[in-house]
Amino acid sequence: MSVEQWPDVAGRIVRDEAGQRHILPVRVYFEDTDAGGVVYHASYVRYCERGRTDFLRLLGTDARRLIDGTDSTEPAAFVVRRMTFDFARPGRMDDLLLVETRVRELGGASVTLDQTISRDGVSLVTAVVVVVLISISGKPLRLSTAVREAFSAHAEAKKNPAP
Amino acid sequence: MSVEQWPDVAGRIVRDEAGQRHILPVRVYFEDTDAGGVVYHASYVRYCERGRTDFLRLLGTDARRLIDGTDSTEPAAFVVRRMTFDFARPGRMDDLLLVETRVRELGGASVTLDQTISRDGVSLVTAVVVVVLISISGKPLRLSTAVREAFSAHAEAKKNPAP
Amino acid sequence: MSVEQWPDVAGRIVRDEAGQRHILPVRVYFEDTDAGGVVYHASYVRYCERGRTDFLRLLGTDARRLIDGTDSTEPAAFVVRRMTFDFARPGRMDDLLLVETRVRELGGASVTLDQTISRDGVSLVTAVVVVVLISISGKPLRLSTAVREAFSAHAEAKKNPAP
Amino acid sequence: MSVEQWPDVAGRIVRDEAGQRHILPVRVYFEDTDAGGVVYHASYVRYCERGRTDFLRLLGTDARRLIDGTDSTEPAAFVVRRMTFDFARPGRMDDLLLVETRVRELGGASVTLDQTISRDGVSLVTAVVVVVLISISGKPLRLSTAVREAFSAHAEAKKNPAP
Repeated sequence: MSVEQWPDVAGRIVRDEAGQRHILPVRVYFEDTDAGGVVYHASYVRYCERGRTDFLRLLGTDARRLIDGTDSTEPAAFVVRRMTFDFARPGRMDDLLLVETRVRELGGASVTLDQTISRDGVSLVTAVVVVVLISISGKPLRLSTAVREAFSAHAEAKKNPAP
Repeated sequence: MSVEQWPDVAGRIVRDEAGQRHILPVRVYFEDTDAGGVVYHASYVRYCERGRTDFLRLLGTDARRLIDGTDSTEPAAFVVRRMTFDFARPGRMDDLLLVETRVRELGGASVTLDQTISRDGVSLVTAVVVVVLISISGKPLRLSTAVREAFSAHAEAKKNPAP
Repeated sequence: MSVEQWPDVAGRIVRDEAGQRHILPVRVYFEDTDAGGVVYHASYVRYCERGRTDFLRLLGTDARRLIDGTDSTEPAAFVVRRMTFDFARPGRMDDLLLVETRVRELGGASVTLDQTISRDGVSLVTAVVVVVLISISGKPLRLSTAVREAFSAHAEAKKNPAP
Repeated sequence: MSVEQWPDVAGRIVRDEAGQRHILPVRVYFEDTDAGGVVYHASYVRYCERGRTDFLRLLGTDARRLIDGTDSTEPAAFVVRRMTFDFARPGRMDDLLLVETRVRELGGASVTLDQTISRDGVSLVTAVVVVVLISISGKPLRLSTAVREAFSAHAEAKKNPAP
């Protein structure tokens, strides 16, 4: 069974009046819950990283290529510089959650993302996450042309929403 | 965007000459790797639990219902009693792995499962996992009719493979 | 070997001119790192929860008792309502980190905590975490007398620092 | 507060009639539990890795040095080749567990370890774990002199138990 047979495994990029956003379905398994009977709060942090990684993947710039240096002159990776999470409602075992990721702002070396985790259209968790591109040696890098173009196309869509 | 729009999010049950097996695609994210640059060995244990949970889900007996007691006279859950894992090759960041789960043996209160994790048709990890049905109070339970029938249908397929 | 033989396993509460703070040593294991070669960002979220839990434990109000209802009229647990993390420097495999936790503010049902994760006196991560006391049914509760007194004693120390 | 102030943070090596064993106290936090109200089974796999890592650390051969290549001619790491876990009783939130690790057998490139996780002297989980020394390029290596001597001293103690 080839990878092509799981077309949505990296989620989808959808376009709406507010621009583009990436949507990733995430199932809640036992590993994600805690003895309080709900999703452990740090699990949402993992979910958001999955959303960001698959967003980059669908934009054509996956994390491995960044690390390998394929997209830049030196090996690099996105790392989280700052994150704020608001927890409004609990997720539970067996829930199918949606992680939605939008670019809020594009800096020289950083990207600020808005992320929402919802169940059946009801928001459970919202997050604002700032990631920066860092070289293997730890130095902040400017966003590579490939990354910038992918996100710029994304920003374009935001400026020129579909009618 | 409704749940119906992600039809393969719980994987698929496929039938072959050896009976039925459940297949779940699992993406490797940063959360699953370690500083050795490969998938952390305990991550495969989580992957296998996802496979078992979604196998039960597609059989119509998800974990929440077992806990809620919907399928039995008292609340219950499957717990792992014994597991053996063999690690042959490492998985890596961004890999799309397949977790395959088969019923090997059906006991009075236990189910023994064969699980394989592969990448592009090459096996990375194999596991044998024995799960038992336990009541909330910790007592082993006999498999409920619903669970037994689902697995029996499965065993039937194994005895009467498609030509 | 009894529990008493591991006296610092829950860390220590120390008193200084700024009041009291809880200090918990945390070792970085493979499970905490990722393929980038550093500590995975969500691991710090787990570390901070360990710090909060052991702070409560040393104050005499551990999480299990809150859940059991021993300290209140109905079963309850602290849950995270909001958290902000700033990541300044990466932790690495085998590091011995210190998680320091202080009460910043005590509300009717919430506690705001300042948390710092450092290595050899150098701060790696800072966090502000708001936790609320929630009943099993999901309703915010007022802090129980036991919890409030423990934190008040803590606040007292803050108002009347040792000379 | 220096690292020296947390003397037992890597556990202890103790000697008895059966040889030497390493003992590491491990606290159960929310992160380790699941919605079943008990310790999630893969958490024990992480606990055992902590025990092995700290055993090596106290033997003077920590994982980072193996990776750095300090102890061998090329960078290397211990990886798990095979593991069997038996789960007899559940651990719970706030438990203080002891992870005990013994060398069962020393091969050319592998070490077989017996590991037990207990609470108040009652065994919850037992494991047999085979680890091998692998170079960064993925090739099995012979155990370095430093590692072999540390484990041999250990084996000596086993052959010549204290009276």
